[in-house]
Amino acid sequence: MIVAVTPNPAIDVTYRVGTHTPGDTNRVLEVRRRPGGKGVNVARVLAALDVPVKAVLPLGGDAGRWLGSALDVPFDAVPISGENRTTVTVTGDGHPTVYTEPGPEVSEAEWTAFGRCLAACLSDAGFLAVSGSLPRGASPDLVAEWVRIARKAGVRTLVDASGPALLAAARAGAVVKPNRAELLDATSTADEASGAGTLLRLGAELAVVSRGADGIAAYTPGGVFTVPAIPGVHGNPTGAGDAATAGLAAALAAGRPLIEALRTAAALGAAAVLRPVAGEVDLPAYRRFLNGAPA
Amino acid sequence: MIVAVTPNPAIDVTYRVGTHTPGDTNRVLEVRRRPGGKGVNVARVLAALDVPVKAVLPLGGDAGRWLGSALDVPFDAVPISGENRTTVTVTGDGHPTVYTEPGPEVSEAEWTAFGRCLAACLSDAGFLAVSGSLPRGASPDLVAEWVRIARKAGVRTLVDASGPALLAAARAGAVVKPNRAELLDATSTADEASGAGTLLRLGAELAVVSRGADGIAAYTPGGVFTVPAIPGVHGNPTGAGDAATAGLAAALAAGRPLIEALRTAAALGAAAVLRPVAGEVDLPAYRRFLNGAPA
Repeated sequence: MIVAVTPNPAIDVTYRVGTHTPGDTNRVLEVRRRPGGKGVNVARVLAALDVPVKAVLPLGGDAGRWLGSALDVPFDAVPISGENRTTVTVTGDGHPTVYTEPGPEVSEAEWTAFGRCLAACLSDAGFLAVSGSLPRGASPDLVAEWVRIARKAGVRTLVDASGPALLAAARAGAVVKPNRAELLDATSTADEASGAGTLLRLGAELAVVSRGADGIAAYTPGGVFTVPAIPGVHGNPTGAGDAATAGLAAALAAGRPLIEALRTAAALGAAAVLRPVAGEVDLPAYRRFLNGAPA
Repeated sequence: MIVAVTPNPAIDVTYRVGTHTPGDTNRVLEVRRRPGGKGVNVARVLAALDVPVKAVLPLGGDAGRWLGSALDVPFDAVPISGENRTTVTVTGDGHPTVYTEPGPEVSEAEWTAFGRCLAACLSDAGFLAVSGSLPRGASPDLVAEWVRIARKAGVRTLVDASGPALLAAARAGAVVKPNRAELLDATSTADEASGAGTLLRLGAELAVVSRGADGIAAYTPGGVFTVPAIPGVHGNPTGAGDAATAGLAAALAAGRPLIEALRTAAALGAAAVLRPVAGEVDLPAYRRFLNGAPA
């Protein structure tokens, strides 16, 4: 079983408008609501692949109740007194506009309970994936703490995070998976190889860098492995990184070779681009991509 | 007691962002949620004036539960199977951007229950105010039906609506209160006097037209009464029309002369502009404005 942690889950609301007119009133033609957050997307892709998965996330308030009722994967919720956040994406005639709420403040006692819940979950897990931002006010050290809890249970951890949380995960010895911009930003470096080198020197087991149309690179102490992106894929890139994370986690958890894990990640990321909703993948396309077919 | 009907209440969410960047991701710095809808604003202003008021509204879903828990005025809720809508207002460095969800579909049986609830409420009421849009799919005749229910109870009705619902209210003999744009649009006329004449010919008891900076005009079969706007008022115009409606309703319910009702409406509308949140009024300013002081 893979445990997928979402530190800051969200209700993802999508508004479809006709013409998007900033500075004026926009009549919403269609509203969609779904459970969101990067770890939730990872869990949903793993479930679609029939990989046993459990989501672990803090839930609170009316929004938390809704998330609990709408989540379609097995999950353990740690109750919090704050209210989970909502993100609003407005789609219309132009590029989507996204509004992200900051999320609740989670108390130290609630994070302690979260760690205990995670430890219990990990007792029969084979891999831990931690994805997405921390709620405001949360210490980046939390991520390092989760990596240590997993190591104590004999479980490897992959962390998809940015900024100080990415550095903390590297120091704790996790597999880290930033995209190129997050890598350069967190390490204050100008090129990918230097940034990945920084993460490895800090202690990361592996630094996997997603490069969008330029594929995926995995930096190890022994060298760099790269796979190209699937050519000709057009669609919705939101959630593609989470599908790639799910692929990496599934392959590494199953003990597959690194290059195969990267190919799985690239194929799943491309299969997610073909779906309009984050957290979903086009499974037939995924299988074609794995066999080397273009889009 | 004044009964204030909100046919399509909403959770009004306000997002404060730093720089508003359409087509990109906007980090929300502050989130505020409050019960909204024009009739809710009217009820809150009446309550602030210590005028006995009861809000009547359809509530359903998680949003309805939240509205019921957050409403700070007495209310009767008619349960519906749909979910109440949310409106999102984004404030930042430019003019606010508003997204309005369409709202739930309310069944015929639910509207019948709504009418029964309204009739029960009106048995000890002195005035009915109906404010705001109908949920999608609802017939404009509903508004006429509510006016008839009120008349049966010996109660006058003021309707602040637009389009076909405004015309239906006029036909049913209500006091109607469009703004100038709504008046011209609903009556397909090019000038205010012709539009108001149309509403009176249809059967409206009175047509009160709010003109923003140009004050308020009341068209009666006997002539036109006008009051100027309070000069020098700057602030948030959202909810000013609802405060004016509350003032009209309170004065008419108390049997005050029409010109005094218009002055009350103008003063309350201006006092609402001074408050950052719709449904609130600056009471000391209201009293100054009533006494003829400028802003």
